[in-house]
This record gives sequence, structure tokens and C-alpha cells, in this order.
Amino acid sequence: MNYFEMSKEELDAQLEKFKNEYAEYKKMNLNLDMSRGKPGDEQLDLSEGLFTAVLDGKDCKALNGVDCRNYGVLDGIPRIKEMFARILGVDVSEVMVGGNSSLNMMFDTVSAMMTKNVNGGIPWGRLDKIKWLCPSPGYDRHFGITEYFGFEMITVPMTPEGPDMDIVEKLVSEDASIKGIWCVPKYSNPQGITYSDETVKRFARLRPAADDFRIMWDNAYVIHDISEKGDTLLNLMDECKKCGTEDLPIIFTSTSKITFPGSGVACMAASKNNMKFIKEKYAVQTIGYDKLNMLRHVRFFGDYEGLMAHMQKHRAVLEPRFNAVLEKLENQLGGLGIAEWIKPHGGYFVSVDVTEGCAKRIVQLCKEAGVVLTNAGATFPYGNDPKDSNIRLAPTLPPVEELKTAMDLFCVCTKLAALEKLTQN
Amino acid sequence: MNYFEMSKEELDAQLEKFKNEYAEYKKMNLNLDMSRGKPGDEQLDLSEGLFTAVLDGKDCKALNGVDCRNYGVLDGIPRIKEMFARILGVDVSEVMVGGNSSLNMMFDTVSAMMTKNVNGGIPWGRLDKIKWLCPSPGYDRHFGITEYFGFEMITVPMTPEGPDMDIVEKLVSEDASIKGIWCVPKYSNPQGITYSDETVKRFARLRPAADDFRIMWDNAYVIHDISEKGDTLLNLMDECKKCGTEDLPIIFTSTSKITFPGSGVACMAASKNNMKFIKEKYAVQTIGYDKLNMLRHVRFFGDYEGLMAHMQKHRAVLEPRFNAVLEKLENQLGGLGIAEWIKPHGGYFVSVDVTEGCAKRIVQLCKEAGVVLTNAGATFPYGNDPKDSNIRLAPTLPPVEELKTAMDLFCVCTKLAALEKLTQN
Repeated sequence: MNYFEMSKEELDAQLEKFKNEYAEYKKMNLNLDMSRGKPGDEQLDLSEGLFTAVLDGKDCKALNGVDCRNYGVLDGIPRIKEMFARILGVDVSEVMVGGNSSLNMMFDTVSAMMTKNVNGGIPWGRLDKIKWLCPSPGYDRHFGITEYFGFEMITVPMTPEGPDMDIVEKLVSEDASIKGIWCVPKYSNPQGITYSDETVKRFARLRPAADDFRIMWDNAYVIHDISEKGDTLLNLMDECKKCGTEDLPIIFTSTSKITFPGSGVACMAASKNNMKFIKEKYAVQTIGYDKLNMLRHVRFFGDYEGLMAHMQKHRAVLEPRFNAVLEKLENQLGGLGIAEWIKPHGGYFVSVDVTEGCAKRIVQLCKEAGVVLTNAGATFPYGNDPKDSNIRLAPTLPPVEELKTAMDLFCVCTKLAALEKLTQN
Repeated sequence: MNYFEMSKEELDAQLEKFKNEYAEYKKMNLNLDMSRGKPGDEQLDLSEGLFTAVLDGKDCKALNGVDCRNYGVLDGIPRIKEMFARILGVDVSEVMVGGNSSLNMMFDTVSAMMTKNVNGGIPWGRLDKIKWLCPSPGYDRHFGITEYFGFEMITVPMTPEGPDMDIVEKLVSEDASIKGIWCVPKYSNPQGITYSDETVKRFARLRPAADDFRIMWDNAYVIHDISEKGDTLLNLMDECKKCGTEDLPIIFTSTSKITFPGSGVACMAASKNNMKFIKEKYAVQTIGYDKLNMLRHVRFFGDYEGLMAHMQKHRAVLEPRFNAVLEKLENQLGGLGIAEWIKPHGGYFVSVDVTEGCAKRIVQLCKEAGVVLTNAGATFPYGNDPKDSNIRLAPTLPPVEELKTAMDLFCVCTKLAALEKLTQN
């Protein structure tokens, strides 16, 4: 029964009930972490083969004859460039392979714009005001980068089709101090939304007032399905080429959630103009990234089909976890009117919108009972969710039985917080 | 006999002789690279053990219990931090371990100062003029960083004790727009000079006009001896602490020339104040660097003694190569008055100062006969050696027999270029 249709007496009775249930959970001394999108042990074990057979030191030559043990090669060995080009649907010449972190490549890209302007204009570091669009809820580490550089972050609401493009189009066409937008276009963090074809086409058709406006297209979950029929994302670079706007997007991905977080391989892709600008910086910044780790990866996967087969193993581990989370939500919170969520077909999170003003309280209640969630507010710029409503659940790390316990607790806390609020009114 | 004491006829005869010798070399179709400080195959083979036994995927936990396969740990796993602290003679708390490139960490450090000021003042990116001291001959990639950021580079002459400290002290005390200096304090690139105790003490006693002046102390060759008795470098951080100037130095090193270039581990060390500033940036820039590669390294070396034993193996490979280069120089150019060099006790280079105005010509002659040297001028800011005199020889990459041939050619070209010049006058 919907809480908003209950009488005062019914609500009081429910409050008493869930206070008692919560007290029982506190006695269990739980110690679980659902705060970050970290793969679990079962997933890490899938890549054990990376350690041994694929690279024994006898043959460390890439296809182009380069000894991967030595210096050289700025943009990555041929086979890994080909693999990323296929993953992202771009031309090999548009790919630059980096170190272990696509986040680092995003930071480096913004940092490059701070020092020099991609079109020869004023570097961002010399402008008094830079603004940046942040579709929210979104990825806290994206917002961390633009906050570090002192940009004013403007929240853009998410819709089931992606960022609200009416707002995006209006803002970027009117205000030349808006220099970019963060996007996780497939299985968005945290909602798991894949941008619709129309949204991608509208991105490609953008005519920003700033000629140095860039779309930071973080395709982190590009092949990370968790259901039999994954979502399909329209290819932004192709659409941009049709519109003559291929300098708009800068695309990122990595194998952090394919092999090992922290020991994977990151990559970016961009137009000829953008890549020239970016490589001018990288050529000064480094002699080259870890080619042995690139070689390890291409030998481990074998080919693109091998990579896709590997992703099916991840799916086999993750799908039951996501289902467990969704079942708990449906069974315990469905129909109460105090929580909404979207069933994602991939990615790493389930996003729950709880009763306004309750997210912080719920995260606090869970923490006091031993379950750490992502901080409430973290999915918005400056850590400030104006409705105090969004909570990001990360189901991948805890063992599945513990995950179920944690979800039971989460549902109790969500009801408790809602009832506290409703009975105060 | 010294060329400068020869008669015109004698010089003409010599010129004819070496023209003919050079013509013979051109017929040999050589194809050798002495341009960069790249380890040779024998050296790379020394680290074969990194590939297999040390890390098989069964136990990837660091001493602090962290699973190195997963996300986390910003500044490096405990054992590698301890190893670098011992190498650099600093406290573990002063160490931050990075990715595969200390050059990248230097770039990142300057880049951080561009965006924010370490003391809360005006970020360098908003100043109209920044100057930087460049002891020369020096490392071209250092100069590349300060050139990228648009700093005015000021050449400081090298002496056998390190940079000319009279000049350094005068400049930094008078001019607050001078924000830093590049140093390779041990086995300097390219001369192989180790800074004297007095030079290090004078660095520690610097009182720069700019409170955000920093010494970029690139200790790339800290344990890279190539002779039985290596040089000893006074510990700059210790000296700075005695003087209350511990915020002056930022120290860098890596295992690029210990294990694998491009797949090694880089590190920096700095005071509490500097490290706080630097880590604020890294915490936004990345979730963490490649911990598996760190674990590989500490397990491969075992302990500091294991590391030092490994360096003796490098020495066994390198010492004969350096001796071959020095013998060729001595036997073929000694006493002619047209070339000077220093015998280094470690590092990766032999630096030769040829007759003024001849360096470019010699590099060109060598190139036309199939031996690539570092570009003449590369060891000076903006690639401009005002005397056109310094040539950097990198003896590590070619097989030793080829190295001897290349050196014979180099000596012929050096004589030829000098004779061309002397007979024109």
C-alpha cells in the first residue's frame, strides 16, 4: 500500500515496525561496501590468464616489430589500437591508447585546454569564467575534474533518453563560456540509461556558441551488458561526420572493468584536429605508455570475438547480482510510493530516487548499520543533490549473499526514513 | 698532433685522408641508432623474471592486504614506497609512486602549478611571464616541458661540479619570475657529472625571490653506476631540512632503466607541503596507478639488496660499452685539440664538445653514413647550442661491435668537420 495514502495511525505503526527491524540489523555487525563500482573477486579471476601464458618474456614484439619492453610508440601498439577502434566504432587513426586510466586521459584533455586552446584562441586557464554542463545524476569523478579546474558546473536533468537536450541546445547555443559537457552515453552512471538515437543525433547537430566546446563522451560501459539483449548506442562520431561536427566529441573508454581496474588499458578517440592537439601534449608529457600491458591484453583476448566472449563471462557473474538488487527493490519497495528506479541492461549501478529529503538520512542509517553506500549527493555537481533524493547502488563487489542482506537493510532504511518524514508532517 | 698547430699543407693532407675514409664508411650502408638512452637487449633480458614467476595471479595482495588487481591506493603499495624511499634517501611519507614515467610526473607537477599555486598565490597559467633555469648541456625532454608551457628558458652553464651556482644564486634571488630549475644531479644527462657536495649545499641554501620556486631534481640515474666506484651524491632533502628549505626540491626517479623503459614504475618525493598540493591533484586525476606492476617489481627485486645486485648486472653489460666509446675517443681524437669529453662513472651518455660550429655538421655527416646521433643542439633550450659544439653519444643500444664501428665513423666525421673548418679559415 502506498505510504502516501496511509492514515497517521497506519504510518505510526509502520514506523514502529521498521524501527524494530532496523535495530535487529544493527545487532548483526555488518561490514559491507556498496559504495564504488568495483568488480568482485569472481570477475577479477576471469582475467587470471593475463598473468602468465600470454607474455613470458621470450617474444615481446608487437606486430610492427617494436620490442614492447623498450621505449617508444606514443599512441599504442597496432593491435590494441585496432581493438579499441572496433570497440568504439572509430577509425584506427582516431585512436590514442594511454596508461591505466581513462579518467586520467579526461583530466589530461581538460588540462591541455587550460594551457593551450585547441583552435589557437585564449587558453581556458586565462579566462575568468568557464562553465560546464553536468547531466545529473552523473559520475562524481567527472564532476571532480571540472570542480578542480574551477569551472562553474551547471546541472542538466537526465531523462529516460539521456540529458535533456532542449536545455543542452539552448544553453550551449547562447553562452560561449560553456566549454563542455560530461556524458556517459551507454549505461549511464548511475542510472544505466543509454542515450536514444535522437539524443545522439541532437548532440551531433549542436552548434555551440563556443568554437572550443567539447563533448566529453565517456563510453566506459560500451560493451558491458548485463542482460541478454543489451542496449545499442548510436555512433556519435559517425553522426558528427554527417553534420561536419567531428571536432565536437572526445571519446574515452578503458579495460578497467574488462580486465583489472588500475592495471587495464585506457584509450581515447577524436577527430584529426583534436588528436593533433592532444598528441602535441602527450609527445611532451611522456615517451610512451606501458606497451607490455597493451601486448598482454591483445594476446589475452586474441581478437574482438575473444573479447566479446570474455564480456559474456562478466555478464554471467553480474546479471544475478543485478537481478537480486532489483528483486529486493521490487518486493520490498514496490508500490509504496517512496522509491523509483530503472532496470539497467548494463553498466555498474542501480540508481534509486527516494522520497525527497531522505537520501542522506538513508545513507546515514545504512552506514550506522555497517553498509557503506555512495555518499548521498555524490551523483550531483559539488556533491549537492538539490532534492536529496538520489542514491547510487553498486552491486558488483560484495558476495551475492551479503549483497542480499545489504539490500534488505537498504529497503528497511528507505522505509524508515520515509516514515520518519511522513509522520513528522 | 694538435690540429691547431698544423700548417695549411698538413691540414689539407689530413682533410683529403679523412674525406676518403668517410667515403669508405658511406659504402658500408650502416644503420645504427645512438640517438637515445635506450637500454639494449642484454639489459632488457636481465628483467625477464618480471614476466612469470613473480606474479601468477594466485596471490595479488600487497602487504596492507589490498588486492592489487582492483581499484584503490593513490600513492603506491607499501613495499614499493619503501623501496623508493630507500633509493632516494627520503621518508616513506614523502614518496608518491606513479605510473610508468617520471617524465609524466614532472609534466604533471608543472601542470599542477599552472592551474593552482602551491602557496595559494597566482597560478602560473595566469602570469604573463615565467622564466626557468636550464643547466646546459641538459636533457632535451626537460626543456620540452618548459617550452610547451611557454616559459622563457635561461641557459645556465654546467661546471665539473654541477650548474654554475654563482649564476643560479644571483638569478633566483633577484628575479621572482624565475620559478624553477631542471637538475639531473647524479650522472647528469648528457655529461655524466655528479653535483659536488658544495653544489648540493648551495641548492639547499637558495633563497629565491619567488616563494613558489622549485628545484626539479630528476635523480634518474641514482643507482646507475657503470664503474666499480660510483659517485656519491649528497642528499638534497637532508640538506634542505637543515636549512628549513624542504619545500624547495621535488625529486623524481623511476625504474625505466632498471627494468623496462615504458613498463617500469615512476616515483616522486617531496615535502609535506608539496606532497599535499600534489596529491590533491592526483586524487582528482586518477583512482590509482598500476599496482600489479608495482607488486611485480617488489617481488622481482625481493629487497633493496636484490635491487642493488640487479644493478650490478646492468653495470656488467654497460661498462665495456662505455669503455669502448672512451677508448675510441682517446685513441682517435686525443690530443688533436678538436674534442673534449668527461669519463662518466654512471648514467647513460658520453658528452663530447667538438670544435665550435662543427656539431651540426658532424651529426649530419654521421647520419648520411647511416649512424643516427642525438640532434646537435638538443642538449640546449630550444634546441639551440650557441656554440654548436655539444654532441650526446648514447652507447647503450647498439651491439658492442656495431658500437665500435659507429664510434670509428663518429671520430672520422669529427676530424673531417674540424678540418673542413680549419682549412676554410
